[in-house]
Amino acid sequence: MTQESSRGAGRRYDDILGPTGSRLADSAGLGSLWLSRNGDGPLPSATDIKRIISLCRSLVFPGFFGNDHTTGRNLPFYVGLWLEELRSLLTAQIGAGFGFNGAGASAHDTARSLADSFIERLPEVRRMLLADATATYNGDPAAESVNEVVFCYPGLKATANYRFAHELYRLGVPVVPRMITEMAHSETGIDIHPGAEIGEGLMIDHGTGVVIGATAIIGCRVRIYQGVTLGARSFPTDADGNPIKGIKRHPVIGDDVVIYSNSTLLGRITVGTGAVIGGNLWVTSDVAPGQRITQTPVPATPINDNNNGNNIE
Amino acid sequence: MTQESSRGAGRRYDDILGPTGSRLADSAGLGSLWLSRNGDGPLPSATDIKRIISLCRSLVFPGFFGNDHTTGRNLPFYVGLWLEELRSLLTAQIGAGFGFNGAGASAHDTARSLADSFIERLPEVRRMLLADATATYNGDPAAESVNEVVFCYPGLKATANYRFAHELYRLGVPVVPRMITEMAHSETGIDIHPGAEIGEGLMIDHGTGVVIGATAIIGCRVRIYQGVTLGARSFPTDADGNPIKGIKRHPVIGDDVVIYSNSTLLGRITVGTGAVIGGNLWVTSDVAPGQRITQTPVPATPINDNNNGNNIE
Amino acid sequence: MTQESSRGAGRRYDDILGPTGSRLADSAGLGSLWLSRNGDGPLPSATDIKRIISLCRSLVFPGFFGNDHTTGRNLPFYVGLWLEELRSLLTAQIGAGFGFNGAGASAHDTARSLADSFIERLPEVRRMLLADATATYNGDPAAESVNEVVFCYPGLKATANYRFAHELYRLGVPVVPRMITEMAHSETGIDIHPGAEIGEGLMIDHGTGVVIGATAIIGCRVRIYQGVTLGARSFPTDADGNPIKGIKRHPVIGDDVVIYSNSTLLGRITVGTGAVIGGNLWVTSDVAPGQRITQTPVPATPINDNNNGNNIE
Amino acid sequence: MTQESSRGAGRRYDDILGPTGSRLADSAGLGSLWLSRNGDGPLPSATDIKRIISLCRSLVFPGFFGNDHTTGRNLPFYVGLWLEELRSLLTAQIGAGFGFNGAGASAHDTARSLADSFIERLPEVRRMLLADATATYNGDPAAESVNEVVFCYPGLKATANYRFAHELYRLGVPVVPRMITEMAHSETGIDIHPGAEIGEGLMIDHGTGVVIGATAIIGCRVRIYQGVTLGARSFPTDADGNPIKGIKRHPVIGDDVVIYSNSTLLGRITVGTGAVIGGNLWVTSDVAPGQRITQTPVPATPINDNNNGNNIE
Amino acid sequence: MTQESSRGAGRRYDDILGPTGSRLADSAGLGSLWLSRNGDGPLPSATDIKRIISLCRSLVFPGFFGNDHTTGRNLPFYVGLWLEELRSLLTAQIGAGFGFNGAGASAHDTARSLADSFIERLPEVRRMLLADATATYNGDPAAESVNEVVFCYPGLKATANYRFAHELYRLGVPVVPRMITEMAHSETGIDIHPGAEIGEGLMIDHGTGVVIGATAIIGCRVRIYQGVTLGARSFPTDADGNPIKGIKRHPVIGDDVVIYSNSTLLGRITVGTGAVIGGNLWVTSDVAPGQRITQTPVPATPINDNNNGNNIE
Amino acid sequence: MTQESSRGAGRRYDDILGPTGSRLADSAGLGSLWLSRNGDGPLPSATDIKRIISLCRSLVFPGFFGNDHTTGRNLPFYVGLWLEELRSLLTAQIGAGFGFNGAGASAHDTARSLADSFIERLPEVRRMLLADATATYNGDPAAESVNEVVFCYPGLKATANYRFAHELYRLGVPVVPRMITEMAHSETGIDIHPGAEIGEGLMIDHGTGVVIGATAIIGCRVRIYQGVTLGARSFPTDADGNPIKGIKRHPVIGDDVVIYSNSTLLGRITVGTGAVIGGNLWVTSDVAPGQRITQTPVPATPINDNNNGNNIE
Repeated sequence: MTQESSRGAGRRYDDILGPTGSRLADSAGLGSLWLSRNGDGPLPSATDIKRIISLCRSLVFPGFFGNDHTTGRNLPFYVGLWLEELRSLLTAQIGAGFGFNGAGASAHDTARSLADSFIERLPEVRRMLLADATATYNGDPAAESVNEVVFCYPGLKATANYRFAHELYRLGVPVVPRMITEMAHSETGIDIHPGAEIGEGLMIDHGTGVVIGATAIIGCRVRIYQGVTLGARSFPTDADGNPIKGIKRHPVIGDDVVIYSNSTLLGRITVGTGAVIGGNLWVTSDVAPGQRITQTPVPATPINDNNNGNNIE
Repeated sequence: MTQESSRGAGRRYDDILGPTGSRLADSAGLGSLWLSRNGDGPLPSATDIKRIISLCRSLVFPGFFGNDHTTGRNLPFYVGLWLEELRSLLTAQIGAGFGFNGAGASAHDTARSLADSFIERLPEVRRMLLADATATYNGDPAAESVNEVVFCYPGLKATANYRFAHELYRLGVPVVPRMITEMAHSETGIDIHPGAEIGEGLMIDHGTGVVIGATAIIGCRVRIYQGVTLGARSFPTDADGNPIKGIKRHPVIGDDVVIYSNSTLLGRITVGTGAVIGGNLWVTSDVAPGQRITQTPVPATPINDNNNGNNIE
Repeated sequence: MTQESSRGAGRRYDDILGPTGSRLADSAGLGSLWLSRNGDGPLPSATDIKRIISLCRSLVFPGFFGNDHTTGRNLPFYVGLWLEELRSLLTAQIGAGFGFNGAGASAHDTARSLADSFIERLPEVRRMLLADATATYNGDPAAESVNEVVFCYPGLKATANYRFAHELYRLGVPVVPRMITEMAHSETGIDIHPGAEIGEGLMIDHGTGVVIGATAIIGCRVRIYQGVTLGARSFPTDADGNPIKGIKRHPVIGDDVVIYSNSTLLGRITVGTGAVIGGNLWVTSDVAPGQRITQTPVPATPINDNNNGNNIE
Repeated sequence: MTQESSRGAGRRYDDILGPTGSRLADSAGLGSLWLSRNGDGPLPSATDIKRIISLCRSLVFPGFFGNDHTTGRNLPFYVGLWLEELRSLLTAQIGAGFGFNGAGASAHDTARSLADSFIERLPEVRRMLLADATATYNGDPAAESVNEVVFCYPGLKATANYRFAHELYRLGVPVVPRMITEMAHSETGIDIHPGAEIGEGLMIDHGTGVVIGATAIIGCRVRIYQGVTLGARSFPTDADGNPIKGIKRHPVIGDDVVIYSNSTLLGRITVGTGAVIGGNLWVTSDVAPGQRITQTPVPATPINDNNNGNNIE
Repeated sequence: MTQESSRGAGRRYDDILGPTGSRLADSAGLGSLWLSRNGDGPLPSATDIKRIISLCRSLVFPGFFGNDHTTGRNLPFYVGLWLEELRSLLTAQIGAGFGFNGAGASAHDTARSLADSFIERLPEVRRMLLADATATYNGDPAAESVNEVVFCYPGLKATANYRFAHELYRLGVPVVPRMITEMAHSETGIDIHPGAEIGEGLMIDHGTGVVIGATAIIGCRVRIYQGVTLGARSFPTDADGNPIKGIKRHPVIGDDVVIYSNSTLLGRITVGTGAVIGGNLWVTSDVAPGQRITQTPVPATPINDNNNGNNIE
Repeated sequence: MTQESSRGAGRRYDDILGPTGSRLADSAGLGSLWLSRNGDGPLPSATDIKRIISLCRSLVFPGFFGNDHTTGRNLPFYVGLWLEELRSLLTAQIGAGFGFNGAGASAHDTARSLADSFIERLPEVRRMLLADATATYNGDPAAESVNEVVFCYPGLKATANYRFAHELYRLGVPVVPRMITEMAHSETGIDIHPGAEIGEGLMIDHGTGVVIGATAIIGCRVRIYQGVTLGARSFPTDADGNPIKGIKRHPVIGDDVVIYSNSTLLGRITVGTGAVIGGNLWVTSDVAPGQRITQTPVPATPINDNNNGNNIE
């Protein structure tokens, strides 16, 4: 490096990197975001939560996710070590979650007790996910085996994460459940809020763009296709114009309902048992049990003009 | 750890971890899922299939994916080693795929022979993907070079995975092709079934939410935008209410067709050469060659009531 | 390996791997793609650009992304080292970007100067992202804290990548900005072109399928839901039928506008300040300030016929 | 890169890298070394053998080597998985070892059977190593606990590797045993040939420079200090001047013998039970049981001359 | 796998792996070794102690060990983060060390306080090591710069580890100091007990085989060459024949002494200031200040007999 | 953490970590060591030099070191990529070496030219190492094949590093050669200065403790055993008492000489062709060609007194 360019580097440092670093290192610039962190305590760790998801998936469907070497003989060994690791990681993340949300750091013992309660639910979660996988196999002519569903279908991955997260959500664990479902959202394009209540036998096919809101209730053996939204209508706001939180605002879906792709269901409406919602519908009122509704075809307009189409780049 | 909390841990272990572990380690809880695994043989490995995809991408577009150091001089060295590694990994995964689907473990020699047949097709796959990339550059005013398309466009990544998977699908390899396209689905939000038949010069722009079904047929130089579904109408079910598998049930798209964003085409309909499907359309019957159809604008209703809109949270 | 199978392997090598390798190693098969690479210079590195994104996120929201150990005391140390690493990596990638696009390898000093200009903007980018996060918290009843928004919401991740990329785009850096936004696209399903101009206080909720085009302009405090497209109508083509590049072709959105899920806005239209676009709308003409439009409900048709629905597999 | 330097690089490539590469890639330059390799079969893998050593150490002294998390509860799980991994890796390395030495590739089943025989010996190896550790604790005033010996003492690490390697050596496994003891040699400076026969209760203290030859026999409860050689006298050569292999040529050491540092014992001599060999001795004939020998002090010469000392740089 | 070989594997499992696993998983086979572990608490971690050594070396000689990127500007950032990491790791290892030696788990606060005391000594340790490096440069005609000594000389690495370990030893930390010096022993062949007391300006050249015992005392500016032992004579034993621990039993070396290669000094003798011990000497009594002693050459015997030499294989 | 302990942490930070960090971050404490670094330029990287050694070993003995997958077919591919990587890494390290020694940063072109000259020598280095391996096989009755020598013998590893380092030393590269031989020293206990000149056919057996000084000259087909020193006598000092550098001060060893274990040869003496030096000898004067010398046995003294032996702990 020549003397001159070295001096140049010095000037840049003094003019740019130094002052910029000072501004970025000043936590005041982060406002309440910094203050509401967990003091100097640990934040939830995305890395550890990814490992927690991987362990839960392995425990529920050994060999299908993340580990290729399970056999009948060694399964008890793997399960034993996975459970220990899960308990340790989950205890720490639950503790970090409490601290993170400003609710006061949870005592380690409380966090461990919650982790144990979660673990105790895993056999039941497996049972439900097995029902989900079987329902998916039965509902998709392209599926060649239940194994293929567990191995390949994003719908099952998102449902698994949701079921794990929902158990933690019911236990009152903050933040961590949402991180778990958002990781599935990133992986699959399927966004299920951990607060939703969903019966067994759920099939989500293709799934990209599916959104299921925080207060939605879904029965058993429901089938949902890509792009379906179970959303809220506009919500009441308080005096400051901010939304009032905690209101039941998403649909209630009965057993054995089918909702085809890209349909949108809004508000606290009820869709009765066995109803079928065709594709691309916009539904804002109740649908009776057994009712089958479909889109009245919008007449497409043949056009000849090259530059006047509603084409999207 | 105090004596007491230690005893507490012991109780928890005996009451929770121990019994839960026993239930999870009991493969009977997995039902036929466990039995239909590949005995104690290896399952397909997501890690190895990711590496296979990476190798195929590198072989087809060296330097653009996964390796920054290829030059004119060293390309033959890299290609030589990549081919060896690909052959070895692919042979093992094809073998695992056969075992996985319960079709009986393929003899190693058969799997290697299929891997070789796949490899032999790679130059042709490259030629098609190059046509895809060029078509994308020509079809998108925002694209600054063909290079940028190969480097950045999710549509090309999904198309590449599809083309690799389709070659394996044609060779009768189970499960692995689906894993390859689902990996692209996760990466790009574009879900192309490996069974679809797609001509060269395909452009998929933006792409999130695109679904192309297992029996779809697509001609050459077709352009498809985000949210487009080439799906099936409801399918016939057998006596048990389960779908009958193996029926041709997705659209046939001619050469030079354009399908704009969020349109849904359903059933074994035919879209003729050069037709243009505008955005947001719902198409369930044939479209003639050269025909251009567009949405008849739905009149939007101005409203004033704050809380009665069809707004979605 | 028996003698015979060994000979078999030899035949396969000579017949398949060898010739296929030769064809794949022949850069002529890559046409102009190979020639327009950066000579034998380095291509942009996806690995390094991922690290650049991680560093930028850490600098803007320390502790929330990628590093769990920042505290009030050590923040200046981390910031100091992150800035150095960012400067070094970014300088190299900017240089590679220039070479890649065939614009001639940028001198190292120019690239470093651009990297410094980028770094100098980071405090302002942090201020805007903080406004984005606060707006998201205020706009979503399901959000429990601003912290949760920063930690979990894909909308914020995509907005962050966009804001980083936009700064580089404004500095004229080729390819790298697009890689940065496409990485967010893959992670979140939200596709924002780095060329778009977006004011602070942006909220994107759920977000899967959102597309914001290269010449879109968006004001402050705008809310956008999943599946919204701000796209172009069909564009003029030149004599060869290829699109003419560089035309303003995407919507202009005013301050305080809300666009609900799955609506499509096309062309260089203007949506006035404070307007509200309901869900599922198809908008191709201007919307006045303060105007609220909503879908006129399409009457759903109850049906009884099992095999005639517009159902999508 | 300027045009000129680029051409310079080309010249260098053509003149140097190219031709050098051709010479190095020509296996003829490796002579019989290349030909006597395992055909194109796998060579023994240093990485896998390191893992094998680590597994054996963990199995024998769980928690002390390589894994910090064993507890009373999880030990059976770890042991179960370690044994499986050990069996798999060892089977492969034994196979490679047979191929390597030109003895013909061992059938997989033979190699697995040898691996099983090795594994079956591990409890006995543990018992001997425990005796070694206890003897070391008793023999070294600086040792504070048996635990410390297992954790820290290089002598115990080298003895462990020797005992593992010796079991394989007895089973007739080629090359691999030597690799195992050479890894300890590198780690500790202690070089024990796997062919030596050594009773339990061995203590090697400090150990650097210890050499124990291939046909040495050592009884129980023997103590050996740094720099001790149990070597061969010069050996008979054949007509070509090369050494005749396979002759018994190293010392036989009785029970309870102590050999202090830097002493050299040469040839097929016998050191009787309970004998004590002082430091720095040169011993080429038998030592009677119970005999204690020590160096007759060499009178050191005081000197005054600065440049005439037998000093070593 | 054929049916038969599968049954074969089963038999092997039942006969060998299963019973062997049971024996190895039975901690009773480990006797007091298992019982005297830290309960189920963590054992000291070799990985973490390696990192502690690396951090200490980096703090003392930044840039020379383990990190290539320190500059004048970023040194404070690195030092800040290194100190934090060191404090955290060292606190945990000190705690594990107390538990390990059965002395009862140290309260976390005590361990942290000891870690802080250690850290506070690092500037003084740097000063001493700088003196060691300078002395080595001055003492070795082959050394080209002090930098080279710090970068390359094993003597300096072993001395650094000793000085770190000695500080911990003085603070009463169990096991960890010994692990630190044994890691240097493995790396360099130089075995210095952490209990030894060594003044500044120490030079150890080449160093392989050097042993410095636990109660040795060494003055300032001493030079020691390869193979030198500062050991104990045979030690008194108790009624059971075990050595009595804690007795001063190694030499005391004055300032400015030089001890040439392969000499052995035994027992609590005193070597006076400025004395020079020639190579290969056996010294068991005091040496006066300033005295220079050298070996009286042993007359080598010319021989002619081919097979009667004292040759060592 | 309670309020109090938090304050305690604060005090500790202010009293200890803060001030200690300031002292350690003050490069003035490093004196000339810091100033004589390569400015803020990169120091030689131990990691990269380890990789360089691994590449050189692979190039010389493909498959034997670090890579298990070379075959006759793929060898040219590996060699091509290894050479490229070696050239790039070596160029950078040579440049760093020049900067490090204060000789002024070498222009990149000069460093690359030296790297090329080194690479050009590799076929000759292979030829010499092959001769070394063959000589070792012929000289050791315990060696079962030349392959085993290359795979397992530390002597060959140390010789390989020496031969690589010596080529760089001859080219005038600073520091890097010494780092390469010191890495072998750590791995094998064999310390060969890169400046020594050693003919082909060298055998070093066992090797721990061997020291070969900077100006030693060794002929062809020489055999050396563990603990042998080829050192310097005390060296002349300048007016300040520091050694005068650059004087020829180590032995000259003729062809076909054998030096048995633990013998020490000092000063610029000459050992004639074919001479044999027995073990444990102290040689400070010339030995005639063909002469065979051996130790006159020192009479060992039988003793009976338990506590008076010259025993070493």
